[in-house]
Amino acid sequence: MAVDQAGVATRALALFAAGQPARDVPEAVRAVFHLSLQDWCAVARAGASEPVSRQLRALVVEEGGAPQADVIGGPRVPARAAALANGAISHALDYDDTHFDHIGHPSVAVIPAALAMAQRLGVSGRAFQDAAIIGMEASIAIGVWLGRNHYQSGFHQTATAGAFGAAVAAGRVMNFDRAQMERTIGLVATRASGIKAQFGTMGKPFNAGIAASNGVEAALLAASGFKPNPGALDGPQGFGATHAGEARDAELASLGTIWRLPRVQHKFHACCHGLHAALEAFAKLPGREPDKIARIEVRVHPRWLTVCNTPAPATGLELKFSYAGVLAMAALGISTARLENYSLDVAQDPHVIGIGRRVHVHADESLTETQARVALHDAAGAGDEAFADLMTPMTLAQRTRRVQDKCADLVGRDLAITLRRKIISSASPTELTEAFMNPGEDIRQDGAV
Amino acid sequence: MAVDQAGVATRALALFAAGQPARDVPEAVRAVFHLSLQDWCAVARAGASEPVSRQLRALVVEEGGAPQADVIGGPRVPARAAALANGAISHALDYDDTHFDHIGHPSVAVIPAALAMAQRLGVSGRAFQDAAIIGMEASIAIGVWLGRNHYQSGFHQTATAGAFGAAVAAGRVMNFDRAQMERTIGLVATRASGIKAQFGTMGKPFNAGIAASNGVEAALLAASGFKPNPGALDGPQGFGATHAGEARDAELASLGTIWRLPRVQHKFHACCHGLHAALEAFAKLPGREPDKIARIEVRVHPRWLTVCNTPAPATGLELKFSYAGVLAMAALGISTARLENYSLDVAQDPHVIGIGRRVHVHADESLTETQARVALHDAAGAGDEAFADLMTPMTLAQRTRRVQDKCADLVGRDLAITLRRKIISSASPTELTEAFMNPGEDIRQDGAV
Repeated sequence: MAVDQAGVATRALALFAAGQPARDVPEAVRAVFHLSLQDWCAVARAGASEPVSRQLRALVVEEGGAPQADVIGGPRVPARAAALANGAISHALDYDDTHFDHIGHPSVAVIPAALAMAQRLGVSGRAFQDAAIIGMEASIAIGVWLGRNHYQSGFHQTATAGAFGAAVAAGRVMNFDRAQMERTIGLVATRASGIKAQFGTMGKPFNAGIAASNGVEAALLAASGFKPNPGALDGPQGFGATHAGEARDAELASLGTIWRLPRVQHKFHACCHGLHAALEAFAKLPGREPDKIARIEVRVHPRWLTVCNTPAPATGLELKFSYAGVLAMAALGISTARLENYSLDVAQDPHVIGIGRRVHVHADESLTETQARVALHDAAGAGDEAFADLMTPMTLAQRTRRVQDKCADLVGRDLAITLRRKIISSASPTELTEAFMNPGEDIRQDGAV
Repeated sequence: MAVDQAGVATRALALFAAGQPARDVPEAVRAVFHLSLQDWCAVARAGASEPVSRQLRALVVEEGGAPQADVIGGPRVPARAAALANGAISHALDYDDTHFDHIGHPSVAVIPAALAMAQRLGVSGRAFQDAAIIGMEASIAIGVWLGRNHYQSGFHQTATAGAFGAAVAAGRVMNFDRAQMERTIGLVATRASGIKAQFGTMGKPFNAGIAASNGVEAALLAASGFKPNPGALDGPQGFGATHAGEARDAELASLGTIWRLPRVQHKFHACCHGLHAALEAFAKLPGREPDKIARIEVRVHPRWLTVCNTPAPATGLELKFSYAGVLAMAALGISTARLENYSLDVAQDPHVIGIGRRVHVHADESLTETQARVALHDAAGAGDEAFADLMTPMTLAQRTRRVQDKCADLVGRDLAITLRRKIISSASPTELTEAFMNPGEDIRQDGAV
């Protein structure tokens, strides 16, 4: 086996990761990253009391160790452990950002790794942000290199591509040169794991945590002189070959020239992503008194009908997977962005049930998975129709406002504003974590063991 | 996706892991396990100063934390970290046991997990040994379930099957019931990783460490109520399906009835496994003065000719992959069991070089990979021939003597005897580790960062 050199993909990633000058990161990339970081902080704090969050926190707190990096809602622990816990905690609500180029959640794997390593080494806020940007871009790129076949075969890109992105981010914090980056990538190739069979369970957020932790671990070992096969990602029987990867080398040629990060999608509704386009289309329709609504006709890509079309949602969880439920909420002015609205009370509210019965969902092969068409009719049959596509670019101003509103819903307006201010001004990693990670009465520290 | 129940394989493993009465473990299984445990202790101690050992130790020592379990040559650290370091340290020399049913090294993945968890919980020596036995048997069984296709596709069974075995062992220490075992197996299914692309690098021993650590982690989380998909090993798009597994369910039906563990092979020469059968055959030949040897004819399976047939080894490392080198050593009475004999001095010894030139290696399709035929000729052409097959069963007494001799070579006869005595008497985990893990002047604690 070729154990002495990196392949084309590893070389391209390492050159980008070690060589991309921070000053040449386009402002548009940095601006979207700032939104992702703010979004990440908010969903992480909001998810800090979820059962999976308490369990991962309990694990690393019980282990203890050198106080290198903050755990959300807990004390400082070693960087590798902080990355593990924070990755899982920030994905607990499944409300973080998504990138559809590879279908993965780049923030929850990469930001916890960059942040933990940045706190461990005490680097500046700017250096932390640069590392996270490079790592997120690398994770999307390696996800595209692995391709749709990797994802369709059952691998969870958030975990797999995420581990490579986390490794690159951690290495960037450590100022690795190209050869060190290649060793880091080669080492994490034997550690990256995570399967979609965990979807719908605590295993899904856990997959984000292991990606982050694997990245930190690989960088720490590479820094200490560890010598893995630097071709273990793209060489014979490497990670790509063994994990149904497509080895789309050409996709990596534009790294650092054409940036994928700005196309990341933030979630603005705290429910299944299959419902978002319909909610966006509905929001474009003229306002109407709820009791004037006779029918709501929804057209979506056929795949969603088996995913999120619960016709009569009876619980808060079922609301999250129901066109009838979320469109009734929207029609009644109940925010679909707020987690607490996906409750038993709302599901059993007679008004919600009443409007829900008037929602009719149709499969439409002419629509993509990110598109929906919604029509609203009154009793006389008169109506309006609107179309939405999640891939339609928003202006930065629109996006900023919506992320800000979402964060305000999640953690309160004051903290949302504080977070944005600290992020824009490149506050140090610890200033940032002190703003939102410290345990308060809203975060339970105990692990429910 | 079916997220609520275990498949056939998981159910069979969990039933065995939780339900197998320790008193019903056959004495023959326990006796071979005792040899594996003694062997593991000796190779672990002997490998504790290797570069990869120092690096893993430095990583976990720098992290620190709750003093739950001993690291070989270091202080106590959390159980998950101890398992990581000890797995890598014990595989650093690649001199530990091998099981050819699945082709993996069961001891280095499972024993560190069982030991770390046993120390963490303070269980008895007997409970520790029972857990390690059950875990090793489970790791071989899951490796057989994954099948040769998994291995040939590039997955390192020591790491993958090893993680499941380590998880089962850790769960057994915790007295898990069947449902807890299923959750542990389901969780580790998203964490298990390790590819053969790391062979020939530090990544290979690292793979043993991650298996052990993954097992401990999964059991700790399962104990705290973590709810993964219990069908993530054998369900749709589970670990087996995504990792080229053959899903040989029938192989698991005999778990606890027909034991695979006793067929484990201990290495008695500190060199490539491809050389062992030839050395065993040579040892059967009548003794002969080195200067009376005109030719040594070696016949082996063709695959070995590209693996370990360095014709003129110039270094200690090259000796480990050279029929000429090791047969010359054997002819000259230089022990092939002793690590220190694979040295530059020996490689460049004119006597070794002289005999080495008289070794002729031939491919023989009629032999299996574990067989060899060696003939020794004098100048007149008269000669003797011997055959050996590593799969030929040894008596327990023979095996015990050879393991004892190997351990004595590695760590000295006094310690070898002490280890055997403590193991036979089921000394507590900490009595055992105190016998061989404590740092002495022969183990460098510093990590060469």
